[in-house]
Amino acid sequence: MIDRLIEQIKVKQNPTVVGLDPTLEMIPDFLKEKCFKKWGKTPKAVGKMFYKFNKEIIDYSYDLIPAVKPQIAMYERYGIEGLKSYIKTIKYAKKKNLLVIGDIKRGDIFSTAEAYSAHINGTNIEGEIFDLWKEDAVTLNPYMGYDAIEPFMDACKNKDKGLFILVKTSNKSGEELQDLIVNGKPIYDYTADLVKNWGRSLIGKYGYSNIGAVVGATYKEQGEELRERMPQTFFLVPGYGAQGATANDISGYFDERGLGAIVNSSRGIIAAYKKQGDRDKDFAKASREAVIMMRDDLKNVIKL
Amino acid sequence: MIDRLIEQIKVKQNPTVVGLDPTLEMIPDFLKEKCFKKWGKTPKAVGKMFYKFNKEIIDYSYDLIPAVKPQIAMYERYGIEGLKSYIKTIKYAKKKNLLVIGDIKRGDIFSTAEAYSAHINGTNIEGEIFDLWKEDAVTLNPYMGYDAIEPFMDACKNKDKGLFILVKTSNKSGEELQDLIVNGKPIYDYTADLVKNWGRSLIGKYGYSNIGAVVGATYKEQGEELRERMPQTFFLVPGYGAQGATANDISGYFDERGLGAIVNSSRGIIAAYKKQGDRDKDFAKASREAVIMMRDDLKNVIKL
Repeated sequence: MIDRLIEQIKVKQNPTVVGLDPTLEMIPDFLKEKCFKKWGKTPKAVGKMFYKFNKEIIDYSYDLIPAVKPQIAMYERYGIEGLKSYIKTIKYAKKKNLLVIGDIKRGDIFSTAEAYSAHINGTNIEGEIFDLWKEDAVTLNPYMGYDAIEPFMDACKNKDKGLFILVKTSNKSGEELQDLIVNGKPIYDYTADLVKNWGRSLIGKYGYSNIGAVVGATYKEQGEELRERMPQTFFLVPGYGAQGATANDISGYFDERGLGAIVNSSRGIIAAYKKQGDRDKDFAKASREAVIMMRDDLKNVIKL
Repeated sequence: MIDRLIEQIKVKQNPTVVGLDPTLEMIPDFLKEKCFKKWGKTPKAVGKMFYKFNKEIIDYSYDLIPAVKPQIAMYERYGIEGLKSYIKTIKYAKKKNLLVIGDIKRGDIFSTAEAYSAHINGTNIEGEIFDLWKEDAVTLNPYMGYDAIEPFMDACKNKDKGLFILVKTSNKSGEELQDLIVNGKPIYDYTADLVKNWGRSLIGKYGYSNIGAVVGATYKEQGEELRERMPQTFFLVPGYGAQGATANDISGYFDERGLGAIVNSSRGIIAAYKKQGDRDKDFAKASREAVIMMRDDLKNVIKL
């Protein structure tokens, strides 16, 4: 995964990942009304409109970005119909040669993690493998330790898949546990060391591992320290834009080649049209402009 | 949720929760073959057989137990068809007056947790609430702090729903983060204090909160310390049976009324027939016997 991701970052000259995290409030009225008219005010209608919304955003940005990151919760909220839309979105993104990072943040004991690992391992039914979820990489939660990670490792070794494991999240209350100090260092440093070790044997040709870390953009100093602490770990960085962080905050997350991090923006891109008055019909065009602005903003601080 | 759960525990005289965590290997051959014949070797066939399997186990145990706990990963593994089976299982369990604890262990930042909270909050589409997932309570992961919990609180306050938040898990590698020592106390004690505080305003008539904790059966001493540390927090206890813990290990998790914990067993109950030679067709009967044995085993150490 990681080599493919880096190659796409180089080709597109852009370390931006678009967070495909739609909410009903983000859907332009004309699209909402069309779908409600056809399918009623139902989860099915929402699933359909989310897919149409995502598809158009992908059409308007796939040539500019290396990857998308759908947040599964936004779809799970609408039950089966929502999750169908999640999978359809992934299929379409892959058709457009985008890498897909499924933001699922699962984490559980071994036998359960093994079941969740179907997201990247596929599902074995009597010897036949079904690729039902189709993500290239997923995010995971480390609270349960290596148990929660191990079943995913096979796909990272043998199927060119990858992981991004929560280390230092972008939200304020993440501090409640992650910033507790143990023997002079914070918990997130312990998590960082675990993630580094788990990924040690999976380093690709650019010096980065298939096992990455989630490191929030909103904690500049901690992010820079983590960059030094785990030099072979690629970062997935949430928190840029709508959550308040700027390109300057994260310049230290990259190496001298401009590699080392992929920066997520969700609302800031997919709901960009909302900040521009009456641009409902142009929502995807507005998202393209937001992608270009973000790319250029990041390229001011990194060399790619 | 918690008062309803306790009342059911008292009526059934049993603090056992049956973990409905089927795997393909657990399904009796006759049922597997029937479903594969009808729907091919497909995720749909697996979804159908899981539901039939669960339904029969529920039919044979609903009069003995207060609750079931389906592990969503076991269904998510089979994609959309698996998740349909998860929801169908929940519907059926509720029809039989069982409480349903959805073992989902989600955990994310506020806006995402808000989406996940549909599991117990329902899903609002233009003012109409759809109850798509139907759980009475869900498990959550606290690594991101209160952000990950807050959106679920409304349902715990106003819709008689509940939570069980990971504090000390039953697996060995859970120690990697949970047992790190901060100022003389382990991380899981910090998590315990957070959970206790989050639940303080939601105490029901038996003195327990709608916000419970997951505390593994496999760490006897720690579990007993946690019982003292959080006297108003109900425990969901995994690790009994197949994971190695006995009734004696968890006797200290209960109060003098025999309340304070609900003990999960999955494989030990739903796959009980596998230990008994040629009892394929009697799998549900075998699970009933296993429930009775577990109930009696627990009642040897607690007074209800």
